Amino acid sequence: MPPPDPLPEQIQFIVAVDRLKQVFRRSRLTDDSRWENDAEHSWHLALMAVVLHEHAASEVDLCKVLTMHLIHDLVEIDAGDTFAYDEEANVGKEERERAAAERIFGLLPDDQGDCLRRLWEEFEARETPEARYAAALDRLQPLILNYHMDGVTGWRRHGVRAPQVVDRNRHIAEGSPTLWEFARRLIADSVKEGKLEG
Amino acid sequence: MPPPDPLPEQIQFIVAVDRLKQVFRRSRLTDDSRWENDAEHSWHLALMAVVLHEHAASEVDLCKVLTMHLIHDLVEIDAGDTFAYDEEANVGKEERERAAAERIFGLLPDDQGDCLRRLWEEFEARETPEARYAAALDRLQPLILNYHMDGVTGWRRHGVRAPQVVDRNRHIAEGSPTLWEFARRLIADSVKEGKLEG
Repeated sequence: MPPPDPLPEQIQFIVAVDRLKQVFRRSRLTDDSRWENDAEHSWHLALMAVVLHEHAASEVDLCKVLTMHLIHDLVEIDAGDTFAYDEEANVGKEERERAAAERIFGLLPDDQGDCLRRLWEEFEARETPEARYAAALDRLQPLILNYHMDGVTGWRRHGVRAPQVVDRNRHIAEGSPTLWEFARRLIADSVKEGKLEG
Repeated sequence: MPPPDPLPEQIQFIVAVDRLKQVFRRSRLTDDSRWENDAEHSWHLALMAVVLHEHAASEVDLCKVLTMHLIHDLVEIDAGDTFAYDEEANVGKEERERAAAERIFGLLPDDQGDCLRRLWEEFEARETPEARYAAALDRLQPLILNYHMDGVTGWRRHGVRAPQVVDRNRHIAEGSPTLWEFARRLIADSVKEGKLEG
């Protein structure tokens, strides 16, 4: 018997993930026209991973980092975006996301689905150099969007304050000390310029 | 003298490319809620490159393909999206895109900007295995979106007919014979099901 054709399952997955374009985040685009969605956020992160590669804390396999970014939010198609600063909404998040991973990666041929699911778990665990660098950029990107936007920042709209932002984002340092130093300056400047409450 | 810090220019580039999220294409999302933008399209392509890797015509450096996808539409921030089937709009496209590449990649530190610009030119020229595979997916993705959407397809809205679609997309075969065979079936099914005029 010939091995089964993987293409139908792969196409089914490619069609299903189109929904990521309709999962909205709590960051505004820099022109303040609307909220950002998960698909374009994932693109932005992956491009940042290419451009900022030299600032990773240690040597990383860039291809692995890019793949992490491309898939890191897929579970939100089912589980929704959980606002990082909303503690109540974060209850049960892990369970919801595990069920989502089961369904979404399960659309793929078994070995491929397992491989991508393990990569998503590696990203979530932040224990490898790739996961730490990838997760650092996932935190840095909304800081950059908030600081550089024309209008009222997502922080101000949601009543988030500087100490929460510092606390929530300090693991950027594990992925890149250089970028954490940059992020701290950005947070301090945001407070100085009235973009974030101190 | 210490070498100049590359970070300010890199951040400037990362902020500038946020505008890609506001460049709209002629494909609808599969739920027919709106037109797709270039940033989420780029994300979708890169994820397809991971998932469909085994179908590339020859061995490809996946990291290079992913980077091509992440940057391939950046010139449209200045030059706009040119509808593939609009011959008139395509006049002068090359010149507009070259000027855009000059400005956008020029935001980066020189060596990095040159490197990404050359990669964009490689993608456009479709002469290497990576560029051929990357370009094949760039053509395949809107076919998949059109076929799987709920509603009137972009093809029908813009009066595009099957022979144009076949003609415009046949270079998918250079990047992946398997995916071209799949695309031809998709086009034939689209005509049979009234999604595309024959």
